Amino acid sequence: MDQTALYDLSYGVYLVTVMDGNRPTGCVVNSIMQVTSEPATVALSVSHNNYTNGCIAKSGRLAINILPQDANPKLIGRFGFRSGKDFNKFESLPYEMVGSTPVLKTNLCGWLVCEVINRMETATHTVFLAKVTDGKRTPGKTPMTYAYYHNVIKGKSPKNAPTYQAPGKEKLPR
Amino acid sequence: MDQTALYDLSYGVYLVTVMDGNRPTGCVVNSIMQVTSEPATVALSVSHNNYTNGCIAKSGRLAINILPQDANPKLIGRFGFRSGKDFNKFESLPYEMVGSTPVLKTNLCGWLVCEVINRMETATHTVFLAKVTDGKRTPGKTPMTYAYYHNVIKGKSPKNAPTYQAPGKEKLPR
Repeated sequence: MDQTALYDLSYGVYLVTVMDGNRPTGCVVNSIMQVTSEPATVALSVSHNNYTNGCIAKSGRLAINILPQDANPKLIGRFGFRSGKDFNKFESLPYEMVGSTPVLKTNLCGWLVCEVINRMETATHTVFLAKVTDGKRTPGKTPMTYAYYHNVIKGKSPKNAPTYQAPGKEKLPR
Repeated sequence: MDQTALYDLSYGVYLVTVMDGNRPTGCVVNSIMQVTSEPATVALSVSHNNYTNGCIAKSGRLAINILPQDANPKLIGRFGFRSGKDFNKFESLPYEMVGSTPVLKTNLCGWLVCEVINRMETATHTVFLAKVTDGKRTPGKTPMTYAYYHNVIKGKSPKNAPTYQAPGKEKLPR
């Protein structure tokens, strides 16, 4: 089996944000997709190892911040490669609360605020099914795809991403 | 709520193929994502109205054919805008069987053959969780994204896609 065929699935690059009870936190997620149109629902895959996973499970809410091609790469570093458990990822970052969910006020294509309505467990990740309850779009921006992040920005996958390949194991970089 | 924010989620363009018991069939799916890395699993959203949905449920197997940018647009028309219930979508199309699952021999980035291991129901779509049991990649090809299909090929969403917007209702074309 050639698992590298998985490299050609297409993704965006998103920051999933949530309250942990006391403060906002979040992580980078690639695996997000719309599931139904009416009502609008999305599914996202979040690692059990991400602090964000438990926060989503507890609060039942999350926001998807859609990064544009010209997003600040430091945002991805901050949200993708450190744990929110012992680090305040929102420090000095402008954000606003939409209901009880934090969304970034930074350069975005837009955001979606969602309420968890179902979930499916796997060995390492939870697939949350979430209903979109609010959304905002900034027109005229080009969404960052994972391929763009990888090929142009030369970024790597966070360790907890479904698409992560341990360095020694990958046959082709992604 | 501005639902057009959903337009900036990123997707690929795939043909999901399956046996209906007697013959191969399939449909166009955008909403596919990797969920776990080891073992490799993917989730995909398929409308209840797609003939393919019942075929996947019955056979427990499916293939994801990953379309490249230079895929024949007629393939998308054939698989996305007609029902496999009363039309043989594979007529005169070269394909091969991988185990009991048909994959196209046409111009592809690659394919993944998968076994359904779980499912989550929604009002209009089934989210299948499927373990990748085989895969093949043709290196050097650029995957078609939904944005490319929409912006460059000027394609539209099939009616059963999660991302479909009825013509009178869409604020922005996608």
